Amino acid sequence: MDTAGKVIKCKAAVAWEPNKPLVIEEIEVAPPQANEVRVKIVATSVCHSDLYHLYEGMHKDGFPVVLGHEAAGIVESVGPGVTEFTPGDKVIPLFLAQCRECHFCKSPKTNQCANGRTEAMSPVGSRLSCKGKKIYQFSGTSTFSEYTVVRQINLAKIHPDAPLDKVCLIGCGICTGYGSAVNTAKVEEGSSCAVFGLGAVGLAAVMGCKAAGAKRIIAVDTNPEKFDKAKIFGATDFVNPKDHSKPIHEVLMEMTNGEWTSPWSVWGTQQSALHSTVPAWGVSVIVGYTLIQKFSAQPGDLIPGRTWKGSLFGGFKGKDGVAEMVQRYMDKKIMVDEFITHNMGLDQIMEAVDLMRKAQCVRAVLKTSPQ
Amino acid sequence: MDTAGKVIKCKAAVAWEPNKPLVIEEIEVAPPQANEVRVKIVATSVCHSDLYHLYEGMHKDGFPVVLGHEAAGIVESVGPGVTEFTPGDKVIPLFLAQCRECHFCKSPKTNQCANGRTEAMSPVGSRLSCKGKKIYQFSGTSTFSEYTVVRQINLAKIHPDAPLDKVCLIGCGICTGYGSAVNTAKVEEGSSCAVFGLGAVGLAAVMGCKAAGAKRIIAVDTNPEKFDKAKIFGATDFVNPKDHSKPIHEVLMEMTNGEWTSPWSVWGTQQSALHSTVPAWGVSVIVGYTLIQKFSAQPGDLIPGRTWKGSLFGGFKGKDGVAEMVQRYMDKKIMVDEFITHNMGLDQIMEAVDLMRKAQCVRAVLKTSPQ
Ligand SMILES: NC(=O)c1ccc[n+]([C@@H]2O[C@H](COP(=O)([O-])OP(=O)(O)OC[C@H]3O[C@@H](n4cnc5c(N)ncnc54)[C@H](O)[C@@H]3O)[C@@H](O)[C@H]2O)c1
Ligand SMILES: NC(=O)c1ccc[n+]([C@@H]2O[C@H](COP(=O)([O-])OP(=O)(O)OC[C@H]3O[C@@H](n4cnc5c(N)ncnc54)[C@H](O)[C@@H]3O)[C@@H](O)[C@H]2O)c1
Ligand SMILES: [Zn+2]
Ligand SMILES: [Zn+2]
Ligand SMILES: [Zn+2]
Ligand SMILES: [Zn+2]
Repeated sequence: MDTAGKVIKCKAAVAWEPNKPLVIEEIEVAPPQANEVRVKIVATSVCHSDLYHLYEGMHKDGFPVVLGHEAAGIVESVGPGVTEFTPGDKVIPLFLAQCRECHFCKSPKTNQCANGRTEAMSPVGSRLSCKGKKIYQFSGTSTFSEYTVVRQINLAKIHPDAPLDKVCLIGCGICTGYGSAVNTAKVEEGSSCAVFGLGAVGLAAVMGCKAAGAKRIIAVDTNPEKFDKAKIFGATDFVNPKDHSKPIHEVLMEMTNGEWTSPWSVWGTQQSALHSTVPAWGVSVIVGYTLIQKFSAQPGDLIPGRTWKGSLFGGFKGKDGVAEMVQRYMDKKIMVDEFITHNMGLDQIMEAVDLMRKAQCVRAVLKTSPQ
Repeated sequence: MDTAGKVIKCKAAVAWEPNKPLVIEEIEVAPPQANEVRVKIVATSVCHSDLYHLYEGMHKDGFPVVLGHEAAGIVESVGPGVTEFTPGDKVIPLFLAQCRECHFCKSPKTNQCANGRTEAMSPVGSRLSCKGKKIYQFSGTSTFSEYTVVRQINLAKIHPDAPLDKVCLIGCGICTGYGSAVNTAKVEEGSSCAVFGLGAVGLAAVMGCKAAGAKRIIAVDTNPEKFDKAKIFGATDFVNPKDHSKPIHEVLMEMTNGEWTSPWSVWGTQQSALHSTVPAWGVSVIVGYTLIQKFSAQPGDLIPGRTWKGSLFGGFKGKDGVAEMVQRYMDKKIMVDEFITHNMGLDQIMEAVDLMRKAQCVRAVLKTSPQ
């Protein structure tokens, strides 16, 4: 059946309102317009940022929306002006665009794209609708759906042999965590690191620290069930803040005698992470996104020489980073399968969401359409 | 008259209590003990950090104290174990020690010294007394005095032809500002910078930005009288926050269209400085020290790729930085004389302090003993 040029009716998980369960609905996906690509999503996983939008950010005007931004699929059809993709290409949607033409894209110093300022949900550009209502597009992607339409600057072509139900994780969590270690913190050989929060992002940071040659990698999580996984990715020490009465940065300082480089803050514990670094060359990277919490410190916390950085998508440029990391996976240089704790169907999306809320999974992969 | 081995009676400005004027007193300066050096201070200048201790920090236990940490002098005598200095050497006292032996000193990544954790004022080690009372040593230096005793790790030997009433400024403000641009922010050629607060530290940052090849240097001060000086050091644009009703970071963003690198925050305006940088490769450096103010931001301020750093003594190692910067001055590669707006005697110290409180000077140099 040739679907090109026609509206596609398919299943998607629609978030009608903040704080309410997603509902599996039949939606309509219009054909791609100029410079857009319609993608059959084969597998999508749930990242904490999806939950953030549903339960915390909850922009009044951001609903109804189809969430999801960590996925892989196959190009179904392309709009006018699309030269980079043809139907059948294996692809990964990108929440971080790469146009290759703006002053940001041309600079090696940033992964921002001036043409990629997708608001978390922009009504403009969404090709999705349900029951006669326009559905917002989330992060330029909206992958909790059998089909979606993205701009070609929000799409990466990947290795034709890549298993989509695995490499979908490279669309967000793995690049974000791994890159925050190797690109943003630039972890040095022989250094000591700590990673706060052992979801997929934190575990990928552990993997990045290990790849960069860190000699000590301290994994911190309030859920000790995460420690076995962390060990697989290279963590050498394990700390549960609940086991200690004193502030966690004091615990870490004592463990390491202050001689270390780079903790990541992946989960709302930004101050602890900064204070855990050695007040000389310590580097702390913020990855956990929230508009609710502020972080604060005193000038004297930074003045001895500490550095505080943020990292989006691990500092990787969108298209380049995804292609590179998929290739590394194909070359068996990074782990991906090990992040997957659950395999489900799109219908079970609320089960996957609840598992993540309770920190009982690393990544649940939802098969949407057959490969 | 040979003073070696004897107590020296001399003039010093004593801070008996927080928030009260300094008093010129006759003090007693004991001979240097092991690894210590007694220095005849020839010229000292006032830095804002002295005022900070007197009027803001005001540690209860930090008085009576002799303030002052930006000075130059001549070695009078040395204690046992001192090999690096002999009487007659021209020297600059260092608030930032460099022992050359600890793990910090041996690392090129930091200017901290593990043996240099001088508390702002430590009773231990002070060789000063007045009217039978022990006087605290400030920052390991206490230069508002005709003589002082410092540890040899807190002292730099400088070029024998250096004019002490000029190079005293290299003991703090000039290294701090210049280094925060070239060492800490690593300002790149062709970049745009902004400097908040045009005291000696800020003006030296302007000079550092210019030396690093910045094409645009925006000087920001609430006192527009500072702008003429800033121009001499290389500033290209001038902004008085009082002339604008909108937040200063919006003004700067509009001026530069967001395409810039590195603002310094030198004076309690840390958030504005961070928000003024381009949310991609922007670097913001905190130099202004205060324990009173906190600074805060949202993860989203850093996540697009901004970096927040602190800088102590401009990232220079104590002894190396001072020797290097004095040499650069002798080679006419940096300006120093241009920072000096007032020349006075030690007796006029309160005049110098008041000028700084009102932001009516850049640096006032006080001649203490004849060269
Ligand atoms: N900057 C980016 O580009 C980017 C991209 C993806 C995700 N994120 C953010 O990264 C964060 C992690 O994402 P994820 O999908 O791995 O989440 P996740 O929910 O799978 O993992 C979070 C982990 O943190 C642990 N945790 C919670 N509170 C903690 C505490 N106080 N101390 C230590 N550990 C604690 C939980 O037990 C859980 O294991 C989220 O904030 C997400 O929004 C950022
Ligand atoms: N980190 C270090 O190693 C180090 C070393 C020396 C000094 N310092 C600190 O650097 C700072 C500057 O020292 P200095 O001796 O040059 O001080 P200074 O008092 O000579 O200069 C401060 C300048 O800031 C301006 N200013 C005040 N409020 C402002 C505002 N809201 N916006 C813009 N400008 C404003 C004043 O008009 C003045 O020109 C101080 O906080 C000092 O403690 C830090
Ligand atoms: Zn994500
Ligand atoms: Zn671009
Ligand atoms: Zn100073
Ligand atoms: Zn040392």
